[in-house]
Amino acid sequence: MTPAWRCSRIASRHGTRWFTTSARRREIRSIAELPPRIYPGFRGRIVYAQETSNHDLLALHWPAPPRNILFVRKDDDAPVQNALNEYTRHVKSTYPDTNLVFEPDVAKQIHEAFDFPIYTVTEDDTHVPYHEKVDLTTTLGGDGTILHAASLFATATSVPPVLSFSMGTLGFLGEWKFPDYKRAFRDVYVSGHPSSLHATHPLSTPTDGGSGPATTSAWPSSPSLRGKSMGPTRASRILMRNRLRIGIFSPTGARLPHEPPFAHPSQIRTPIPNNPNNEDIFALNEVLLHRGANPHLAHLTILIGTPPHHQRTLTTAIADGFLISTPTGSTAYSLSSGGSIVHPLVSSLLLTPICPRSLSFRPLVLPSNTPVTLRIEAANRGKEIEVSVDGVRRKQGLRAGMEVRVVGEEVRVPGTRDWRGGVPSIVRSGGVMAEGEDHWVGGLNGLLKFNYPFGEEG
Amino acid sequence: MTPAWRCSRIASRHGTRWFTTSARRREIRSIAELPPRIYPGFRGRIVYAQETSNHDLLALHWPAPPRNILFVRKDDDAPVQNALNEYTRHVKSTYPDTNLVFEPDVAKQIHEAFDFPIYTVTEDDTHVPYHEKVDLTTTLGGDGTILHAASLFATATSVPPVLSFSMGTLGFLGEWKFPDYKRAFRDVYVSGHPSSLHATHPLSTPTDGGSGPATTSAWPSSPSLRGKSMGPTRASRILMRNRLRIGIFSPTGARLPHEPPFAHPSQIRTPIPNNPNNEDIFALNEVLLHRGANPHLAHLTILIGTPPHHQRTLTTAIADGFLISTPTGSTAYSLSSGGSIVHPLVSSLLLTPICPRSLSFRPLVLPSNTPVTLRIEAANRGKEIEVSVDGVRRKQGLRAGMEVRVVGEEVRVPGTRDWRGGVPSIVRSGGVMAEGEDHWVGGLNGLLKFNYPFGEEG
Amino acid sequence: MTPAWRCSRIASRHGTRWFTTSARRREIRSIAELPPRIYPGFRGRIVYAQETSNHDLLALHWPAPPRNILFVRKDDDAPVQNALNEYTRHVKSTYPDTNLVFEPDVAKQIHEAFDFPIYTVTEDDTHVPYHEKVDLTTTLGGDGTILHAASLFATATSVPPVLSFSMGTLGFLGEWKFPDYKRAFRDVYVSGHPSSLHATHPLSTPTDGGSGPATTSAWPSSPSLRGKSMGPTRASRILMRNRLRIGIFSPTGARLPHEPPFAHPSQIRTPIPNNPNNEDIFALNEVLLHRGANPHLAHLTILIGTPPHHQRTLTTAIADGFLISTPTGSTAYSLSSGGSIVHPLVSSLLLTPICPRSLSFRPLVLPSNTPVTLRIEAANRGKEIEVSVDGVRRKQGLRAGMEVRVVGEEVRVPGTRDWRGGVPSIVRSGGVMAEGEDHWVGGLNGLLKFNYPFGEEG
Amino acid sequence: MTPAWRCSRIASRHGTRWFTTSARRREIRSIAELPPRIYPGFRGRIVYAQETSNHDLLALHWPAPPRNILFVRKDDDAPVQNALNEYTRHVKSTYPDTNLVFEPDVAKQIHEAFDFPIYTVTEDDTHVPYHEKVDLTTTLGGDGTILHAASLFATATSVPPVLSFSMGTLGFLGEWKFPDYKRAFRDVYVSGHPSSLHATHPLSTPTDGGSGPATTSAWPSSPSLRGKSMGPTRASRILMRNRLRIGIFSPTGARLPHEPPFAHPSQIRTPIPNNPNNEDIFALNEVLLHRGANPHLAHLTILIGTPPHHQRTLTTAIADGFLISTPTGSTAYSLSSGGSIVHPLVSSLLLTPICPRSLSFRPLVLPSNTPVTLRIEAANRGKEIEVSVDGVRRKQGLRAGMEVRVVGEEVRVPGTRDWRGGVPSIVRSGGVMAEGEDHWVGGLNGLLKFNYPFGEEG
Repeated sequence: MTPAWRCSRIASRHGTRWFTTSARRREIRSIAELPPRIYPGFRGRIVYAQETSNHDLLALHWPAPPRNILFVRKDDDAPVQNALNEYTRHVKSTYPDTNLVFEPDVAKQIHEAFDFPIYTVTEDDTHVPYHEKVDLTTTLGGDGTILHAASLFATATSVPPVLSFSMGTLGFLGEWKFPDYKRAFRDVYVSGHPSSLHATHPLSTPTDGGSGPATTSAWPSSPSLRGKSMGPTRASRILMRNRLRIGIFSPTGARLPHEPPFAHPSQIRTPIPNNPNNEDIFALNEVLLHRGANPHLAHLTILIGTPPHHQRTLTTAIADGFLISTPTGSTAYSLSSGGSIVHPLVSSLLLTPICPRSLSFRPLVLPSNTPVTLRIEAANRGKEIEVSVDGVRRKQGLRAGMEVRVVGEEVRVPGTRDWRGGVPSIVRSGGVMAEGEDHWVGGLNGLLKFNYPFGEEG
Repeated sequence: MTPAWRCSRIASRHGTRWFTTSARRREIRSIAELPPRIYPGFRGRIVYAQETSNHDLLALHWPAPPRNILFVRKDDDAPVQNALNEYTRHVKSTYPDTNLVFEPDVAKQIHEAFDFPIYTVTEDDTHVPYHEKVDLTTTLGGDGTILHAASLFATATSVPPVLSFSMGTLGFLGEWKFPDYKRAFRDVYVSGHPSSLHATHPLSTPTDGGSGPATTSAWPSSPSLRGKSMGPTRASRILMRNRLRIGIFSPTGARLPHEPPFAHPSQIRTPIPNNPNNEDIFALNEVLLHRGANPHLAHLTILIGTPPHHQRTLTTAIADGFLISTPTGSTAYSLSSGGSIVHPLVSSLLLTPICPRSLSFRPLVLPSNTPVTLRIEAANRGKEIEVSVDGVRRKQGLRAGMEVRVVGEEVRVPGTRDWRGGVPSIVRSGGVMAEGEDHWVGGLNGLLKFNYPFGEEG
Repeated sequence: MTPAWRCSRIASRHGTRWFTTSARRREIRSIAELPPRIYPGFRGRIVYAQETSNHDLLALHWPAPPRNILFVRKDDDAPVQNALNEYTRHVKSTYPDTNLVFEPDVAKQIHEAFDFPIYTVTEDDTHVPYHEKVDLTTTLGGDGTILHAASLFATATSVPPVLSFSMGTLGFLGEWKFPDYKRAFRDVYVSGHPSSLHATHPLSTPTDGGSGPATTSAWPSSPSLRGKSMGPTRASRILMRNRLRIGIFSPTGARLPHEPPFAHPSQIRTPIPNNPNNEDIFALNEVLLHRGANPHLAHLTILIGTPPHHQRTLTTAIADGFLISTPTGSTAYSLSSGGSIVHPLVSSLLLTPICPRSLSFRPLVLPSNTPVTLRIEAANRGKEIEVSVDGVRRKQGLRAGMEVRVVGEEVRVPGTRDWRGGVPSIVRSGGVMAEGEDHWVGGLNGLLKFNYPFGEEG
Repeated sequence: MTPAWRCSRIASRHGTRWFTTSARRREIRSIAELPPRIYPGFRGRIVYAQETSNHDLLALHWPAPPRNILFVRKDDDAPVQNALNEYTRHVKSTYPDTNLVFEPDVAKQIHEAFDFPIYTVTEDDTHVPYHEKVDLTTTLGGDGTILHAASLFATATSVPPVLSFSMGTLGFLGEWKFPDYKRAFRDVYVSGHPSSLHATHPLSTPTDGGSGPATTSAWPSSPSLRGKSMGPTRASRILMRNRLRIGIFSPTGARLPHEPPFAHPSQIRTPIPNNPNNEDIFALNEVLLHRGANPHLAHLTILIGTPPHHQRTLTTAIADGFLISTPTGSTAYSLSSGGSIVHPLVSSLLLTPICPRSLSFRPLVLPSNTPVTLRIEAANRGKEIEVSVDGVRRKQGLRAGMEVRVVGEEVRVPGTRDWRGGVPSIVRSGGVMAEGEDHWVGGLNGLLKFNYPFGEEG
């Protein structure tokens, strides 16, 4: 079974090759043919506490119903595939205006089961990235599947909302239980619809902000939707998970490519998303530098601040490796390495060493907007240091003088209260906490066995 | 010597008794006679990064020159007293409009050395708290002295800026070296003066916000001040340190008094500030619950969220004690207990257990606006649990059912960009980092011996 | 409920006063009237592995059946008292030659239930310590009760074997389940009896050593005993738990008294055993130095080696406290403070700091025969440092210059293979491991939830 | 510079190929031609403390002067080579009966500098291992060089004494400073000589034990040696470092070969010593199982006890890796992974996880004679787990079902007080501690910066 909390490192993928679209041209279409993406608004109760404006959870508001739905599933798992069949059939029949999008190899595997076209990234249209078309992503699997889905948007500054389901064990990233899929999808689908605004939800007051005026006119007053509003509803709650923005640089300061070297060590189903300008990519959990199979310790200098003039050396780590994590990643690899558990709403970066050659290296938590640079030291004497992003290792290691530059993603549009970054994760509801602490506290106790009491010898 | 980083716990105070003012009525006056306080503005480059609006450092802007200066010094230390003499004489002679304020016993000890009146809280005017009069606090000592100075404003929602000097070892809280006192005081004194605005400082752009329009008209155009502007200057940089807001409650939810029980275990020079309505008090470092001399482990339930409806049990800790710390306090007691080091600009609360009876209790970092409740469990069977705020223990311990409720202080005025909370700490300048990371990184490496390299057997 | 692993610190005792023996002279007799103690032999398979001669477990061999049985029970617990009634009645009726011994207040409480005399330490005979009379100790309660029973022999270099029962949760010290009491007591009672030697037990080969020739002649060939040997048996297995030998010294090197200052903070049922010459006392778990309720950190210098000429400073700890533990104590307070888990057969001392003011203080494990001195530093400035032995605090704290000197107890008679020290703990049997690892591994996993797997959100 | 404490992992080796001996047959001879090895005796003050017979340090006693001296040096280091030249010339000219032995590639490099034959393992005599000929090993370099020297005896149950010198930084393994080489070598050379027994050394009393009667007759009464006894001397003190005995087994229980797969990842100068029967090999520091470059976590089951009948599952670790270390290795990799620091005389094994996927995995310390098995779990799904011994990785990783079986080496001859295992390390003298704690305490403080005090911002 895929362990939930650290699945970034164990999500194996098979069957990578791109299919030929010739014979099945009718059933599998290119996402280039889809209508343009619908961007939702996120409305928050901005809390000016301390020096931050913590937003707690946000409310999801579609200006119009989502149409292009990307389904991402765990591989090689029959129950998951069966669930996907049931789920997609329900969505298409209940919301006929939706278009179903899959990853290429999934599309090839399952397209014959549908009597309507499905969409994917075809060989001819690899220049059209998912984030230009996908309105909503929905995953079936565990935390590893969510991490993989996020990686499909690793080059996107605006990620569509993610609705996640788990078949068995709920993961730490807040999946819903699969049997709730009908209600869950409907709630997300109508989130922001005028009728849903009538619900007495503390987050839904329009004056709280949000991305411009609520464009309710875009909603159809069709009976079909009305029929779905069988009861009171409220806007879906969003946990905006911050990511890391990562660039890799040569000793002379030139950008090094993320792609194609980034690949999963075994096989990979989907290449790193289209990144023609080779810009920064984003990580949901962490970036790792590690000695790998090399028995020599890694020598890394950690600098903070903006190069070249406002940069200062923090320390030189001599260690098996070094992690920079998001709070979301604080319960993944960083936790194994002794890092603190940081709530996903604490805007921060975690710096955690792996097996440092020092008695006095304590994990650090920095403001998320701190530029952090990890520089490969000459003391590594020609050995390459491995670099991995969310558990996917770059084929080519890094040599002396190369740098990995990291900073927390900006999730607000400067000067406004609009949101533009982060992974909008739809939070499981039903608990007592309107502020949505339930899944996090629940995961802490239920999954991580946090502060597990001593007890009876079983 | 007073260890810098954890001095909250070792600042002993002698000579508490209040003096009689009869004979020396002319020299020692009540602060009630002082002109009202001048509130500075703080202008920041608000960075909407992640879900927070990190402010980095702020720029200090006086609408008019500060007049009422509170001098706080370390006790029982001759060099510190000598330095205080030199410092106060310089301030009064160079800035004759200033009024010197001292704590009562200090005033009594030193007033004969002055040929002008000095001010203090007199027996007759204990209802006038420092924060209604003091424009600027300046300390001579170490981190413990800063902590004590902050405690004089433990009931104030608006704390005057603090300029700190150290005689020897620089502390982690960013003291200045005493020999720099003339330049340091002058820079603070003129910070916000029109001439100082001409400096090309990135923080000083008026459009960045700040507390209303720069009221430059209040500044005198006196030659004396002009004379001091010998060279270019710029606004003093402020690190707004967040505090904890703390209330203590009975099992029925009634407030329990902070005062008079709060007192230093040995003697105390100054009582807890006037708190007639017994409202929340503020802590700069941490609040501690501990078994004290009791050999029994403390049983505490930790709840998060707002009582009564949005509260959820996080866990029950069975431990020697439990800490809730600010990021400022992350390098104090929390560090000894295994907590991570958190940068003071990460808006957060640290939950750190002390010797927990569990293998799986990892320190937690929560958003600063998370309400946290520590409830004394019945399992303590009548034993009292000690509670301490910034190293000062409440005389009366807590019994079963009592609660300590903590939340991070709000430092912004809701709906505006004005600042109203926190301890405005004037940051040591001179380093290469305009963003002021220097004192923190320097303290990490220089004081804490962070990641200290293995080396030569000395 | 009394937490098993750390109960040294929570064993509260009530009803301390000595009873008057006048009216009940017939029923409660002094242990001075008992026949002298019978010393068992311990035979081991000495394994010369590494530099140690690890003994694994030992086999218990009585030269004659045990007669004087000390029953120690948990206080204020009705089920435990009922179990005690049932247990003692069974022992006396089945083994009529046995004499039942209780602590004074227990004897007073329960003597009326018996129609035969019971024994205790009477007011007139406090000079007769338990260890001169008691052949076997048996406890009803948890780990805390075992710890208390061990404290009754804190001045004895030879401790009788301990057979422990638990009513509910089994503790880490290897208690038996109470329902097994008949078989367990019988096995211990006949351990070493000729018929029991016929069992094919790997430990029972007489040539393996042991305390002289097996004096089988002392065993009665009575039908009563024969009747009990209903089936094959084997020698009871003994885990010889090492203790710490502890002395307290003045700045001039004079011994300071252990008694009477050692006492439980609340009330104490039994005073520290007779220690007329004020010699070293022994601890089963640990000795603790702690700041107690004092907010100041403790300054302690740790020296190793034999004073005065072969002593060397290891380090000066500035911390909340400091622990020296046995391996048995490694799963008690030391575990909470971050110490490693050390198997009770590793001959060692654990040095574990509590909340040290240092990033680089890692727990240490030293050879058990290392003399370790903890010296109170002048930097404590007159504050007393509390000292506790197995959770019982010395009333008088320690001042600057005073020393606590600790070394592991010698358990072998030099030049021989005889045993003379340690607490002979009768190990629970029935597992697959003849070497008896079962209770330790079981406790690790069952009680401490060691390496507890992440799992389903329950 | 080679970091001292963890150099096992960074000792790179160049120039591995075997030279042809044809042309230089006269200068480089096979060690097969050397006289047989002289085995020293080790006499200890056996301390029956606790359940162990701790030996403290031992005294070295040669029955006759050592003749065959193996010189091992750090590679690619000109100062070390110069020191070797000076050192070897001194030894040969002062002790003309000695024979100089080198590793093959060193011999090839330097043999022309000598006008007398030197010895090595030649191509024709690879069946003659070092341990059949070498009386004394002496190293020039750091801890890594000592570790390499120890690896030359990885198949030997009896290792010759090791005298180590460091050019610069002293390592944690107790090197001598090179300038002391003349005195140090002489002291070792005459250790056990009758005249040296006259010294008043506490360890030298013959009645203390030792390997039979001191065979003083073997010593020459030559003037040359006498001349060297310029002053009083005493027996060299030996720290007998325990090793791990390691075997690798297939799922069916068949032994897997150590050789030839064991090799350094880059190049290797000397192959693993002759191990024709493929028996267990020995490690001085640790055996490591690790995921290597594989992003998947390793699944390992840890069993203790002797298979098949007395074995019990301790736990299943899901982690980056897992370490079993000696106390000597407790300051190497285990320290980086959070293990305790264990004194080399504590007879124990350390079990330390690397980045475990659990909050509750605490390092364990077991008796050294505990058989520990690490079994590769099927959950690794075909991925190989890397195994390394003292920093040298086995080329072929381990697959599901394979086992690494480890137990502490026996260092005593059963039933006697003779020694037969361990690495006899000659301890640096000159300190105040006759028991030789100086190098360990010194290394703790000087090298590891243990409990390094907070201090002045430098």
